[in-house]
This record gives sequence, C-alpha cells and structure tokens, in this order.
Amino acid sequence: MKAFEFLRKSREKLGITVVLDKGLSPEFLRDYLRVCGEYITFVKFGWGTSAVIDRDIVKEKIEIYKKYGIKAYPGGTLFEVSYSKGLFEEYLKECEELGFETVEISDGSITLSLEEREDIIRKAIERGFTVLTEVGKKSVEMDRKITLEERIELINRDIDIGADYVIVEGRESGKSIGLFDSKGNVKEEDFKILVNSVPLEKVIFEAPQKNQQVYFILNIGPDVNLGNISYEDVISLETLRKGLRGDTFGKV
Amino acid sequence: MKAFEFLRKSREKLGITVVLDKGLSPEFLRDYLRVCGEYITFVKFGWGTSAVIDRDIVKEKIEIYKKYGIKAYPGGTLFEVSYSKGLFEEYLKECEELGFETVEISDGSITLSLEEREDIIRKAIERGFTVLTEVGKKSVEMDRKITLEERIELINRDIDIGADYVIVEGRESGKSIGLFDSKGNVKEEDFKILVNSVPLEKVIFEAPQKNQQVYFILNIGPDVNLGNISYEDVISLETLRKGLRGDTFGKV
Amino acid sequence: MKAFEFLRKSREKLGITVVLDKGLSPEFLRDYLRVCGEYITFVKFGWGTSAVIDRDIVKEKIEIYKKYGIKAYPGGTLFEVSYSKGLFEEYLKECEELGFETVEISDGSITLSLEEREDIIRKAIERGFTVLTEVGKKSVEMDRKITLEERIELINRDIDIGADYVIVEGRESGKSIGLFDSKGNVKEEDFKILVNSVPLEKVIFEAPQKNQQVYFILNIGPDVNLGNISYEDVISLETLRKGLRGDTFGKV
Repeated sequence: MKAFEFLRKSREKLGITVVLDKGLSPEFLRDYLRVCGEYITFVKFGWGTSAVIDRDIVKEKIEIYKKYGIKAYPGGTLFEVSYSKGLFEEYLKECEELGFETVEISDGSITLSLEEREDIIRKAIERGFTVLTEVGKKSVEMDRKITLEERIELINRDIDIGADYVIVEGRESGKSIGLFDSKGNVKEEDFKILVNSVPLEKVIFEAPQKNQQVYFILNIGPDVNLGNISYEDVISLETLRKGLRGDTFGKV
Repeated sequence: MKAFEFLRKSREKLGITVVLDKGLSPEFLRDYLRVCGEYITFVKFGWGTSAVIDRDIVKEKIEIYKKYGIKAYPGGTLFEVSYSKGLFEEYLKECEELGFETVEISDGSITLSLEEREDIIRKAIERGFTVLTEVGKKSVEMDRKITLEERIELINRDIDIGADYVIVEGRESGKSIGLFDSKGNVKEEDFKILVNSVPLEKVIFEAPQKNQQVYFILNIGPDVNLGNISYEDVISLETLRKGLRGDTFGKV
Repeated sequence: MKAFEFLRKSREKLGITVVLDKGLSPEFLRDYLRVCGEYITFVKFGWGTSAVIDRDIVKEKIEIYKKYGIKAYPGGTLFEVSYSKGLFEEYLKECEELGFETVEISDGSITLSLEEREDIIRKAIERGFTVLTEVGKKSVEMDRKITLEERIELINRDIDIGADYVIVEGRESGKSIGLFDSKGNVKEEDFKILVNSVPLEKVIFEAPQKNQQVYFILNIGPDVNLGNISYEDVISLETLRKGLRGDTFGKV
C-alpha cells in the first residue's frame, strides 16, 4: 500500500518509462528498485557502457531488473559498433548469453539503407528479441538534415516491419536534437504534426529534462511513453503523470 | 573528531539546511547520513513523491532520519492536493500515522484566502506539528504577479500566526521564481528590501544552485537558513558556510 | 572479462582519470568501485570537504580507494586554508596520519610567490608525497588576469621542480575559467598554443562537462589526462575514450 492512499489515482494504462543506466552498481540497484522498480518498463544500459563493465556484473544487473519485470537492453550505439565491424551475429549471441531479451536497433552514428535496417529488425525479431528501434542521429548537424517527413516515415516503417517500439532520439542532453531546440524546448509545430502521424502507443519519446516530460504529459497525456529518464527522476516522473507535482497539478 | 581538526571553525549557531529527497532508498540513506547527517535539520520528501512510495518505506525513512535528529516532512504540494479535495483531516491523520512530525503549508498551485491560510496553520499547530509555510507560486507567470510587498507581508503574517519557519520558494531549478531571475541570479534590489523586512532566523531561502548558496552566505552570513539543497550538496554547503571552498574562502 | 569482449579495444597507455568525490559514503564506494574502479587513477576529496567529515570515515574511504590502486588526495583549497594560517606542517602531518599519499598544491584563492610555490612543492616531495599542482584561480575575475603565457610558464616550472602532474583548473562547473569560455566551450586558440607548449603526459585537464571531455579526446587523444570527472561519468568517459559513444564513435 502506498502512503496517502486516499489520493490514489489509478492509471488505466501505464505509460512506458525507459530509464538510462550509465553504470549503477548491482547493490545500489537492489535498494533503488525497492522504491521505484514498479514504475520502470525498460532500462537502457546507455550506448556502449556494457562493453566496459565486467560480464558478471552485467549479468547480475539484468537479473536484478528482471525480478521487477524490467527489461534491460544495451544502447543502440553498441549495436552500431558491432554491426559496422561485421559482428552483428556475435552481437546477438552475446546479448543472449548475457541475458538481454531486448535490443535496440539504431543508426545514430552509422548509415543504414532502408533494406539493411529492415533485414536487421527482422533478424532480431526472428531471434526472439523484443525490438526497439531509434530514429535520429547523434550529431546535431546530421540530425538536422532529417526532415520531419522522413522521421515520420521511418517510425511508421519500423512499426510495420514489426518493431515493438520506436524511440524518438533526444540524447542524454535533450538539446538540439529531434523535436528539441537548442534550449531543450519542444518544437511545437513539428510536435503536433508528428503526434498526428504515428501510433503513439508504439512510440517512445526521449525526454531527459523535466520541462520536456511535462510538455509530453500535458500534450499527449499521462500515459505517454518516455525514455532517457535519469534514474533519479523516476519517482518525480510518476508524480508528474499523476498530477502530484506543481507542473501538472490539476491538469492531468 | 573531524579530519584536519586544527582548521575547525565552530559556528555559534547552525544555519538550518533543508534537503530535498526525491526518492532515496532507506539503505542508501543509512550510509549517506553517516557522512553528513549532522548537517541536516529538515528533509523534504519533494512535492507528492510520498504518495507514490510504499507506506512501509516512507515510515522506514522517517525513522532513519529521526535517528540523526532530522525532521522529515511531505512537500507542500501534497498538502495542496489533499486540501483541494477536501481531505485536509485525512492528510493530517496520515502524516501522524506515517510518523511525520512536521508539515508544510503552501499555496503554490491552489488559491487560499488569508483566513483559510491562517485556519490551516493554526489547525496544524494545534495538532502538534512543527509548521513550515511557503510563500510563492509554482508557475512562473503566477509567481511574477506577487509583489515584493505581498511576499514580505505574507511571511510576517505566517510568523505572527505561529509558523515555525517560512520558506521563500525557489523550486528545484532556482530559476524565474521568487528572488531569482531567469538565469538563477539573485535580484539584488528585492533581496535587500526583503532581508531588511523579515526576521531572518525564521525564514528559509530555497537555494538549489551553488551560486545562490554563496550569495546568501556572503550577504546574510554562514548561518542563513537554506532549503531545496540537493542531497549531494550537503557537504559542499557546509564547506561554503565554513569558508572551506574557494567561493567563500576568506570571506566568512 | 568484459561483456561484448569481441569489441575490446586495448589502449596502449591509460589516460589518467581524476574523479571528484564530494562526500560519497564508504558503503556506496565499495559497490561503486566494483563497477568502475579500474578506470580511476586519482580521486580528489573536493576542496575542504575532508575537514567536515569524521576522521574515521576519511580514513576508511582512503583505504577503500587504495584497494583499487586509486590515490586519494584532499583538494587544493584545504592546503591553501592551512598554509594561509601558517599550518602547512600540521597539514602534511594530518595528511600522513589519515593515509593520504598524494597532495595538491594550488593558489586558487591565495597568493604565492614563485619561490614560495617552489619551496612548498619541494617540501611535499621530500616528505614522500605524490605531488599534483594546479594552475588557475577560483575567481573568474582573478583567473582572467592570468595570461596564457603565464599559465604555460607555471605549468612547465612546476614540472621542472618535480611535480608529478600539473592540473589545469576547470572547477566543478567548467565555465569561465582557464581554457573554457562562459558557456563551457574550449577556447580553441588558447588550447592549441598550450597543447604545443607543455608535456601533455604530465598535464591533467579539468573537464567536468561531456562536451569538454569529447573535445580533449578528439584533439589530444583517448589517453589525455582528465580531471574533475563526476563519479557518475566514469563509465561514460571510458566509453568516450574507446569510441563506444556517438560523440567519439569512429573518431578514436
């Protein structure tokens, strides 16, 4: 039972929350998840961090997350590094051996033709992985070259192919990327068009900053899927979704 | 005994430090307080975070804090949500049952007449709570409408009624609110007038940013009461108060 | 063995990483270092934080770090406070008793003549300490008065005297100080001149922000010595050094 149960607002459907884990210790995790594990759906071991951490620790962490029903996956950059070296098969195998059941397919730093992208997604699905794809580039300059139409097309294409969710890139900073301007504010025009052109239950918006989380919650709803959430902000995000913080109080 | 004891600067009176807890685990707290528990007076379980955390964990945390003489209290927003639903009595009762001995009364997101505000404060005092009130609005637009004179009047009014301390709102960001401009700098004119119009020992300034903490320490003194301090900055704040960091070295 | 071992990029020489510890608990440290202890060379107990923490805890932490081969040292400001009070001998003695084997000599807040600086460095070396010195002022105004030539001269002078490493000041913020402009960007002109005028294997650049770490890695190399790294960014920094994050992927 929660404290202040009389204020309880049950949410019909839980919006997905993807947490960014940059190297938390297994012991810290165990304590931390007691407090907020129930509010997390996926956890991303950011970019290539998994590859500089001991196998045993990576395995241990995946297991801890599993106890809370949380699906861990390595960041898309690790896939990209592997793929660009011709090591995609080794990548999938290592994911399986470590206990990852979800992978992220992205081309934030590499170039993939539409056909290649499709083949990769299909292959990962065939192998039994839950598949998240990401749309967007890591470089501000490269990302700027993607038109809104292209973004929308790619999102819908990935979903048609069978991706479980498509992530709209926001990076850890949430600035000058995808739907965000250089100050981290949401580009409202682009946002409106995109929101009306994709199936929102299949899209995860990376929104590392509080003002971005508030924007998505107020403009899409409390059950919007949000990613790149700092591990320290999970409880805060849940209060935003439930109208228990000033920013969304009386508005959700 | 502290390390480098020969540098010890005893402070006549300890300024109050209020820490913002957004969902730390009980285990983390136990370890953390061993290092800096002695420097904390109050801890605020930010806004409505208590209501999305298990009762047992909330109780456990309150007890851990108590061992260090630290008074935990739920954020003002939780009071506001309860009050606006006609659940003020339930709110106080739940606070008592959980072990909170301090409450915060605020109208950051709701509207309270002066009479209502007074009644609420009196009621909380009668029930035996240590009472903190807060002056300021959560919304930048709403907060801007409060004149400096109104802020000062409300602070003094709350103290007259019997509030133990009055908090000057700064939010977690410390920007575009109360005494802070959009960059988080202190509005010097307003600051000077306010400081000369209220009993400083009864006022707690929310000052989440280091430059704000430095400003208040240099302009009021090392024993100024400061709030919304990140749990990671408690030791840093203590060094600022004691002139053990470059920013205040030789100046306090 | 690391996860995704097939991606392993062995680095010929490990660049030094200096972590900023503002008051982590011994218990937290033990868990944390299991994950990333191997990537840390030095840890700075920031400015005067050691002097507000219990001796037993300071000693315990130094020992924990030692188990990972990590050298802890108190921030330069603590030396400065002690020296300015005529307590340099007491300072060195307390460092020895606590178990510190490294000290930092700086004049960020005090003024030292070149002769004084030299004497202090020599004395610390004689006493058997690993000696880091720092070049730069804590105050933006004071720091601005140091010319690039003076900075370079002082760095080389300290190295000639026998300092093990010289730190280029960046503070915790990484803004308006040393090589950084008010936004935290590297001043490219100054950077190029400095880099060509000092022995880089002996210089540690404070680079708290990710964009700064990326800049130094891309412009000097993955083995550049970096300081003032947040404890939360150690794993991220290692991925930047190894090209496992978008910012340096394919470039190192």
